Amino acid sequence: MAQQYEKVALIGLGLIASSMFWAMKRAGTVGEVSGYARSAETRATAREIGLCDTVCDSAIEAVKDADLVVLCVPVGVMGAVAEEIGPHLKPGATVSDVGSVKKAVIDSVGPHIPEGVHFVPAHPLAGTEQSGPTAGFAELFDNRWVLIVPSSDDTDDAAVIRLQAFWEGLGAFVERMDAEHHDLVLAVTSHTPHLIAYTMVGVADDLRRVTDSEVIKYSAAGFRDFTRIAASDPTMWRDVFLTNKEATLEILGRFTEELFALQRAIRKGDGDHLHAYFTRTRAIRRGIIEAGQDTAAPDFGRTGSKR
Amino acid sequence: MAQQYEKVALIGLGLIASSMFWAMKRAGTVGEVSGYARSAETRATAREIGLCDTVCDSAIEAVKDADLVVLCVPVGVMGAVAEEIGPHLKPGATVSDVGSVKKAVIDSVGPHIPEGVHFVPAHPLAGTEQSGPTAGFAELFDNRWVLIVPSSDDTDDAAVIRLQAFWEGLGAFVERMDAEHHDLVLAVTSHTPHLIAYTMVGVADDLRRVTDSEVIKYSAAGFRDFTRIAASDPTMWRDVFLTNKEATLEILGRFTEELFALQRAIRKGDGDHLHAYFTRTRAIRRGIIEAGQDTAAPDFGRTGSKR
Ligand SMILES: NC(=O)c1ccc[n+]([C@@H]2O[C@H](COP(=O)([O-])OP(=O)(O)OC[C@H]3O[C@@H](n4cnc5c(N)ncnc54)[C@H](OP(=O)(O)O)[C@@H]3O)[C@@H](O)[C@H]2O)c1
Ligand SMILES: NC(=O)c1ccc[n+]([C@@H]2O[C@H](COP(=O)([O-])OP(=O)(O)OC[C@H]3O[C@@H](n4cnc5c(N)ncnc54)[C@H](OP(=O)(O)O)[C@@H]3O)[C@@H](O)[C@H]2O)c1
Repeated sequence: MAQQYEKVALIGLGLIASSMFWAMKRAGTVGEVSGYARSAETRATAREIGLCDTVCDSAIEAVKDADLVVLCVPVGVMGAVAEEIGPHLKPGATVSDVGSVKKAVIDSVGPHIPEGVHFVPAHPLAGTEQSGPTAGFAELFDNRWVLIVPSSDDTDDAAVIRLQAFWEGLGAFVERMDAEHHDLVLAVTSHTPHLIAYTMVGVADDLRRVTDSEVIKYSAAGFRDFTRIAASDPTMWRDVFLTNKEATLEILGRFTEELFALQRAIRKGDGDHLHAYFTRTRAIRRGIIEAGQDTAAPDFGRTGSKR
Repeated sequence: MAQQYEKVALIGLGLIASSMFWAMKRAGTVGEVSGYARSAETRATAREIGLCDTVCDSAIEAVKDADLVVLCVPVGVMGAVAEEIGPHLKPGATVSDVGSVKKAVIDSVGPHIPEGVHFVPAHPLAGTEQSGPTAGFAELFDNRWVLIVPSSDDTDDAAVIRLQAFWEGLGAFVERMDAEHHDLVLAVTSHTPHLIAYTMVGVADDLRRVTDSEVIKYSAAGFRDFTRIAASDPTMWRDVFLTNKEATLEILGRFTEELFALQRAIRKGDGDHLHAYFTRTRAIRRGIIEAGQDTAAPDFGRTGSKR
């Protein structure tokens, strides 16, 4: 494929950045990739496993001459990173990010992007429960969606189109969306589900009358799926909830309302209400499988099933 | 392996019964297996795919001369099935079940078991989101737990030991537990997680401002795991909640309390509370993987990850 950016800089070298790097190498669409992470330990690991062509000891060094800079750090520190690198960005370069929240990133990063540099926020809707420089793999974005969320109405269209082609080269589908809608959609499809999973695992861990060892042994009846989600990185998720407060609280309110209605149906023994509710929710599952966004194999294929 | 029961009858021919049948064939521990399901359609499918050595047109016919009868129907109809077959059970036989709730099954089935027949309730903690006669596979119970819940203090010990050996032959680990504790443990590890998943999927389906097609496309960010659980059989789950009302409501109460505390932390911007909570819940995940109750592959291995 043709070269899309001569030099790409990744700031933060965790799950998302490392997956991007391996996917770029697979695609062959960029020249050189430089990287930077906060800790000497992560930088040493990156050098060891060949993550990035050059691992730099400062963000300023990493972004030097870069045509694309991608912020791959937790949402809460993006503003500080942008402030640091802002004065050192190459004129005409594009700054993007992969943050799970978009309005807060636009507000905190935007002011630090100098005239003549394009700021094009984005969010790849793909991830696993693992984190750090060794967690990435080239296939993470295959057939997944990346939402590009232009920071303002006069965002340079050519810069957006170029970033879109870049992500398509990494295996993804791309769509544009405005920041507010993005944050609401993600509150539904990601942020609230994560909070609920964390809560359920917390409840199980808290009970006196059921021991942790019972919870662990008997988890295959449903609970273990929640623990996967609730094993995600605490810093990333703290920042998500602090920065997507409004939409998360709105969806949580809806969730609590519906939960109370089901709770009342259980208390009153209203089997028809329960049955109707449990029937309705099956259609969405079918849609997800038809759209290729999940495997149809029972239990995600992790059981011994051959079908 | 030595023959454990000469004749086994399966009443209900869905996911659990069909998995038991294929696991019995794999183990070679029983003589003949007869089966019965309510609908002519399911019986025809069973005959077609060779599910059971004999498929009978009535439950009474199926249990004739059986040494072990296993009720594999939804919890809410177990009492009626027991009432029907009660007078036709072979003296000295064992009646067991696989119901997800135990106190209600003991109360509804127990009275119909005649003198001289052993009633030994049990619950295999294994399943998938699929149901029906074609959903089963021999490996479903491998390395999973089966809880045997004796119906009374004077349950015949030999009958319990025999049933335990039977389940071990199907690949499972077996433990004994009393009915009340069973229902509480399952409310935590299975019933409440299912209700919460159903609720979250229902909320997503309900929103006007986020379309179903958006929810489907962008589900890989966490939501899709919930849809798998919420695709389970509505009748089975209605019955679970109607019959394990007390324990489910207790755990739901705890869940709501903790959710409100996290919600308050989000509202107040208390990042330390969130971070601490999200850190604590990781230990249980590690325990589950060490205990062999889930795969350590990122994202259950369904991504392209080679690691
Ligand atoms: N994980 C997902 O499922 C997922 C999906 C989509 C989007 N995202 C978003 O992607 C971003 C990164 O997530 P991730 O999963 O890749 O995280 P991760 O694996 O935890 O990696 C985070 C990286 O950021 C670095 N970092 C943290 N604080 C920093 C600072 N103050 N200055 C410089 N570097 C810093 C870390 O460096 P050290 O290693 O030295 O600490 C690490 O290299 C987040 O904004 C997240 O919202 C995540
Ligand atoms: N699925 C799980 O994950 C799981 C795990 C552990 C335990 N369990 C328990 O196992 C039991 C069966 O669940 P399953 O998943 O195997 O269900 P399933 O796949 O839906 O099968 C249920 C079977 O019961 C039959 N049935 C329903 N009502 C009946 C009646 N009134 N008389 C006779 N047969 C009737 C059905 O016959 P038709 O096909 O003719 O309708 C079908 O063959 C339930 O008690 C459930 O709580 C389930």
